Amino acid sequence: MTNQTYDDNNIFAKILRGEIPSHKVYEDEDTLAFMDVMPQAPGHLLVIPKQGSRNLLDADPAVLAKLLPVVQKLAVAAKEAFEADGIYIAQFNEPAAGQTVFHLHFHIVPRREGEPLKPHSGQMADHAVLAAHAEKIKSYL
Amino acid sequence: MTNQTYDDNNIFAKILRGEIPSHKVYEDEDTLAFMDVMPQAPGHLLVIPKQGSRNLLDADPAVLAKLLPVVQKLAVAAKEAFEADGIYIAQFNEPAAGQTVFHLHFHIVPRREGEPLKPHSGQMADHAVLAAHAEKIKSYL
Repeated sequence: MTNQTYDDNNIFAKILRGEIPSHKVYEDEDTLAFMDVMPQAPGHLLVIPKQGSRNLLDADPAVLAKLLPVVQKLAVAAKEAFEADGIYIAQFNEPAAGQTVFHLHFHIVPRREGEPLKPHSGQMADHAVLAAHAEKIKSYL
Repeated sequence: MTNQTYDDNNIFAKILRGEIPSHKVYEDEDTLAFMDVMPQAPGHLLVIPKQGSRNLLDADPAVLAKLLPVVQKLAVAAKEAFEADGIYIAQFNEPAAGQTVFHLHFHIVPRREGEPLKPHSGQMADHAVLAAHAEKIKSYL
Protein backbone atom coordinates (compact mmCIF):
# COMPACT_ATOMS: atom_id res chain seq x y z
CA MET A 1 0.00 0.00 0.00
CA THR A 2 3.01 2.27 0.50
CA ASN A 3 6.60 1.95 -0.67
CA GLN A 4 7.87 2.80 2.78
CA THR A 5 8.26 0.35 5.64
CA TYR A 6 7.84 0.61 9.40
CA ASP A 7 11.00 1.34 11.40
CA ASP A 8 10.58 0.60 15.12
CA ASN A 9 13.36 3.05 16.04
CA ASN A 10 10.90 5.95 15.70
CA ILE A 11 10.30 7.96 18.87
CA PHE A 12 6.71 6.77 19.38
CA ALA A 13 7.86 3.13 19.26
CA LYS A 14 10.44 4.10 21.89
CA ILE A 15 7.71 5.71 24.01
CA LEU A 16 5.63 2.52 23.68
CA ARG A 17 8.61 0.44 24.87
CA GLY A 18 9.20 2.83 27.78
CA GLU A 19 12.65 3.76 26.46
CA ILE A 20 11.84 7.46 26.47
CA PRO A 21 9.37 9.27 28.72
CA SER A 22 6.03 10.83 27.77
CA HIS A 23 3.17 12.63 29.49
CA LYS A 24 0.60 9.84 29.28
CA VAL A 25 -3.10 10.64 29.25
CA TYR A 26 -4.71 7.28 28.46
CA GLU A 27 -3.71 3.70 27.84
CA ASP A 28 -5.57 0.50 27.02
CA GLU A 29 -4.59 -2.84 25.50
CA ASP A 30 -4.36 -1.43 21.99
CA THR A 31 -3.86 2.32 22.34
CA LEU A 32 -1.72 4.99 24.01
CA ALA A 33 -2.40 8.72 24.27
CA PHE A 34 0.13 11.32 25.43
CA MET A 35 0.81 15.03 25.18
CA ASP A 36 2.47 16.41 22.03
CA VAL A 37 5.75 17.96 23.21
CA MET A 38 5.45 20.66 20.54
CA PRO A 39 1.80 21.63 21.04
CA GLN A 40 -0.02 23.75 18.47
CA ALA A 41 -2.38 24.82 21.28
CA PRO A 42 -2.74 24.01 25.01
CA GLY A 43 -4.01 20.44 25.42
CA HIS A 44 -2.66 19.15 22.08
CA LEU A 45 -2.35 15.40 22.47
CA LEU A 46 -1.58 12.39 20.30
CA VAL A 47 -3.33 9.03 20.05
CA ILE A 48 -1.39 6.06 18.70
CA PRO A 49 -2.10 2.36 18.26
CA LYS A 50 0.33 0.01 19.96
CA GLN A 51 0.57 -2.06 16.79
CA GLY A 52 3.22 -0.55 14.54
CA SER A 53 2.34 0.94 11.19
CA ARG A 54 4.05 3.76 9.37
CA ASN A 55 0.80 5.72 9.05
CA LEU A 56 -2.86 5.27 8.11
CA LEU A 57 -2.05 3.89 4.68
CA ASP A 58 -0.44 0.63 5.88
CA ALA A 59 -2.38 0.12 9.13
CA ASP A 60 -4.43 -2.99 9.92
CA PRO A 61 -8.12 -2.03 9.47
CA ALA A 62 -8.94 -3.92 12.71
CA VAL A 63 -6.54 -1.59 14.54
CA LEU A 64 -8.23 1.43 12.98
CA ALA A 65 -11.67 0.21 14.07
CA LYS A 66 -10.52 0.30 17.69
CA LEU A 67 -8.57 3.54 17.33
CA LEU A 68 -11.18 6.10 16.29
CA PRO A 69 -13.52 5.55 19.28
CA VAL A 70 -10.51 6.25 21.53
CA VAL A 71 -9.71 9.41 19.55
CA GLN A 72 -13.32 10.45 20.17
CA LYS A 73 -13.16 9.77 23.91
CA LEU A 74 -9.99 11.86 24.23
CA ALA A 75 -11.33 14.65 21.99
CA VAL A 76 -14.39 15.00 24.23
CA ALA A 77 -12.23 15.01 27.38
CA ALA A 78 -9.76 17.56 25.92
CA LYS A 79 -12.61 19.85 24.86
CA GLU A 80 -14.05 19.79 28.37
CA ALA A 81 -10.70 20.04 30.16
CA PHE A 82 -9.63 23.10 28.19
CA GLU A 83 -13.11 24.59 27.83
CA ALA A 84 -12.37 24.63 24.11
CA ASP A 85 -14.76 25.95 21.46
CA GLY A 86 -13.77 23.23 19.02
CA ILE A 87 -11.43 20.33 18.37
CA TYR A 88 -9.17 19.94 15.34
CA ILE A 89 -8.28 16.35 14.42
CA ALA A 90 -5.40 15.80 11.99
CA GLN A 91 -3.49 12.80 10.74
CA PHE A 92 -0.55 13.21 8.36
CA ASN A 93 0.69 10.56 5.95
CA GLU A 94 4.20 10.94 4.55
CA PRO A 95 6.42 14.05 4.70
CA ALA A 96 4.56 15.81 1.86
CA ALA A 97 1.52 15.83 4.15
CA GLY A 98 3.45 16.97 7.23
CA GLN A 99 4.30 13.61 8.84
CA THR A 100 7.48 13.81 10.94
CA VAL A 101 7.26 10.66 13.10
CA PHE A 102 6.64 7.44 11.22
CA HIS A 103 4.28 5.62 13.57
CA LEU A 104 0.57 6.20 12.93
CA HIS A 105 -0.76 9.01 15.13
CA PHE A 106 -3.82 11.24 15.38
CA HIS A 107 -3.45 14.82 16.57
CA ILE A 108 -6.19 16.15 18.88
CA VAL A 109 -5.93 19.93 19.15
CA PRO A 110 -8.32 22.05 21.29
CA ARG A 111 -9.30 25.24 19.48
CA ARG A 112 -10.61 28.51 20.89
CA GLU A 113 -12.29 31.29 18.92
CA GLY A 114 -9.76 33.91 17.84
CA GLU A 115 -6.67 31.94 18.93
CA PRO A 116 -4.65 30.83 15.89
CA LEU A 117 -2.72 27.54 15.99
CA LYS A 118 1.02 27.53 16.48
CA PRO A 119 2.99 25.82 13.68
CA HIS A 120 3.18 22.00 13.58
CA SER A 121 6.51 20.80 15.05
CA GLY A 122 7.24 24.27 16.44
CA GLN A 123 8.60 24.99 19.89
CA MET A 124 9.14 22.46 22.70
CA ALA A 125 6.77 23.03 25.64
CA ASP A 126 7.71 23.13 29.32
CA HIS A 127 7.45 19.63 30.78
CA ALA A 128 5.76 20.79 33.99
CA VAL A 129 3.04 22.40 31.90
CA LEU A 130 2.62 19.26 29.78
CA ALA A 131 2.40 17.11 32.92
CA ALA A 132 -0.31 19.40 34.34
CA HIS A 133 -2.22 19.34 31.05
CA ALA A 134 -2.09 15.53 30.95
CA GLU A 135 -3.55 15.39 34.47
CA LYS A 136 -6.25 17.87 33.51
CA ILE A 137 -7.41 15.78 30.54
CA LYS A 138 -7.24 12.56 32.61
CA SER A 139 -9.60 14.11 35.14
CA TYR A 140 -12.26 14.38 32.40
CA LEU A 141 -11.95 10.78 31.20
CA MET B 1 -21.05 15.52 24.84
CA THR B 2 -21.72 18.75 22.94
CA ASN B 3 -24.25 21.50 23.53
CA GLN B 4 -25.18 21.53 19.88
CA THR B 5 -27.64 19.18 18.24
CA TYR B 6 -27.83 17.53 14.83
CA ASP B 7 -29.86 19.37 12.19
CA ASP B 8 -30.73 17.15 9.22
CA ASN B 9 -31.12 20.16 6.92
CA ASN B 10 -27.33 20.32 6.50
CA ILE B 11 -26.07 19.82 2.93
CA PHE B 12 -24.50 16.41 3.59
CA ALA B 13 -27.81 15.09 4.95
CA LYS B 14 -29.40 16.40 1.73
CA ILE B 15 -26.74 14.62 -0.33
CA LEU B 16 -27.45 11.40 1.61
CA ARG B 17 -31.18 11.76 0.86
CA GLY B 18 -30.44 12.44 -2.83
CA GLU B 19 -31.96 15.91 -2.62
CA ILE B 20 -28.83 17.55 -3.98
CA PRO B 21 -26.24 16.00 -6.29
CA SER B 22 -22.66 14.99 -5.46
CA HIS B 23 -19.73 13.38 -7.24
CA LYS B 24 -19.83 10.01 -5.48
CA VAL B 25 -16.70 7.94 -5.14
CA TYR B 26 -17.77 5.13 -2.81
CA GLU B 27 -20.86 3.93 -0.98
CA ASP B 28 -21.63 1.08 1.37
CA GLU B 29 -24.36 0.37 3.92
CA ASP B 30 -22.92 2.78 6.46
CA THR B 31 -20.75 5.22 4.55
CA LEU B 32 -20.67 7.62 1.60
CA ALA B 33 -17.65 9.28 -0.02
CA PHE B 34 -17.81 12.11 -2.54
CA MET B 35 -15.65 14.91 -3.93
CA ASP B 36 -15.30 18.13 -1.94
CA VAL B 37 -16.72 20.87 -4.19
CA MET B 38 -14.16 23.34 -2.82
CA PRO B 39 -11.03 21.18 -3.02
CA GLN B 40 -7.85 22.21 -1.24
CA ALA B 41 -5.94 20.08 -3.78
CA PRO B 42 -6.91 17.85 -6.74
CA GLY B 43 -8.57 14.67 -5.47
CA HIS B 44 -9.82 16.17 -2.18
CA LEU B 45 -12.72 14.01 -1.07
CA LEU B 46 -14.98 13.63 1.96
CA VAL B 47 -16.05 10.50 3.82
CA ILE B 48 -19.23 10.62 5.90
CA PRO B 49 -21.23 8.10 7.91
CA LYS B 50 -24.86 7.71 6.89
CA GLN B 51 -25.92 7.92 10.52
CA GLY B 52 -26.31 11.55 11.48
CA SER B 53 -24.07 13.17 14.04
CA ARG B 54 -22.98 16.78 14.26
CA ASN B 55 -19.30 15.81 14.32
CA LEU B 56 -16.90 13.38 15.98
CA LEU B 57 -17.84 14.49 19.49
CA ASP B 58 -21.43 13.20 19.44
CA ALA B 59 -20.99 10.22 17.06
CA ASP B 60 -21.87 6.63 17.95
CA PRO B 61 -18.55 4.82 18.62
CA ALA B 62 -19.85 1.82 16.61
CA VAL B 63 -20.23 4.14 13.61
CA LEU B 64 -16.68 5.40 14.10
CA ALA B 65 -15.32 1.84 14.21
CA LYS B 66 -16.68 1.25 10.71
CA LEU B 67 -15.73 4.68 9.39
CA LEU B 68 -11.94 4.80 9.75
CA PRO B 69 -11.22 1.63 7.70
CA VAL B 70 -13.24 3.25 4.87
CA VAL B 71 -11.25 6.48 5.24
CA GLN B 72 -8.11 4.35 4.90
CA LYS B 73 -9.37 2.56 1.78
CA LEU B 74 -10.16 5.88 0.11
CA ALA B 75 -6.90 7.51 1.23
CA VAL B 76 -4.92 4.69 -0.39
CA ALA B 77 -6.96 4.95 -3.60
CA ALA B 78 -6.67 8.74 -3.75
CA LYS B 79 -2.89 8.56 -3.22
CA GLU B 80 -2.54 6.12 -6.10
CA ALA B 81 -5.02 7.87 -8.39
CA PHE B 82 -3.30 11.24 -8.03
CA GLU B 83 0.24 9.85 -7.70
CA ALA B 84 0.39 11.88 -4.50
CA ASP B 85 3.44 12.06 -2.23
CA GLY B 86 1.28 12.11 0.88
CA ILE B 87 -2.26 12.25 2.22
CA TYR B 88 -3.56 14.82 4.71
CA ILE B 89 -6.51 13.67 6.82
CA ALA B 90 -8.48 16.32 8.71
CA GLN B 91 -11.69 16.37 10.71
CA PHE B 92 -13.04 19.62 12.17
CA ASN B 93 -15.33 19.86 15.18
CA GLU B 94 -17.26 23.10 15.68
CA PRO B 95 -16.66 26.44 13.91
CA ALA B 96 -13.64 27.34 16.09
CA ALA B 97 -11.92 24.30 14.55
CA GLY B 98 -13.01 25.09 10.98
CA GLN B 99 -16.23 23.03 10.74
CA THR B 100 -18.65 24.52 8.20
CA VAL B 101 -21.08 21.62 7.57
CA PHE B 102 -22.56 20.03 10.67
CA HIS B 103 -22.59 16.37 9.70
CA LEU B 104 -19.48 14.39 10.68
CA HIS B 105 -16.99 14.25 7.80
CA PHE B 106 -13.36 13.35 7.22
CA HIS B 107 -11.33 15.26 4.64
CA ILE B 108 -8.90 13.22 2.53
CA VAL B 109 -6.49 15.54 0.71
CA PRO B 110 -3.75 14.29 -1.64
CA ARG B 111 -0.51 16.23 -1.13
CA ARG B 112 2.42 16.71 -3.48
CA GLU B 113 5.86 17.99 -2.52
CA GLY B 114 6.11 21.74 -3.03
CA GLU B 115 2.41 22.28 -3.76
CA PRO B 116 0.75 24.26 -0.94
CA LEU B 117 -2.89 23.59 -0.05
CA LYS B 118 -5.59 25.99 -1.15
CA PRO B 119 -7.67 27.46 1.71
CA HIS B 120 -10.45 25.35 3.30
CA SER B 121 -13.86 26.35 1.87
CA GLY B 122 -12.22 28.39 -0.87
CA GLN B 123 -13.24 28.37 -4.52
CA MET B 124 -15.88 26.11 -6.13
CA ALA B 125 -14.32 23.63 -8.58
CA ASP B 126 -15.54 22.86 -12.09
CA HIS B 127 -18.07 20.01 -11.96
CA ALA B 128 -16.65 18.24 -15.02
CA VAL B 129 -13.26 18.16 -13.30
CA LEU B 130 -14.78 16.84 -10.06
CA ALA B 131 -16.66 14.14 -11.98
CA ALA B 132 -13.44 13.06 -13.71
CA HIS B 133 -11.57 13.01 -10.39
CA ALA B 134 -14.30 10.88 -8.80
CA GLU B 135 -13.99 8.35 -11.66
CA LYS B 136 -10.22 8.34 -11.31
CA ILE B 137 -10.34 7.48 -7.60
CA LYS B 138 -13.06 4.85 -8.19
CA SER B 139 -10.78 3.12 -10.69
CA TYR B 140 -8.26 2.53 -7.86
CA LEU B 141 -10.77 1.08 -5.38
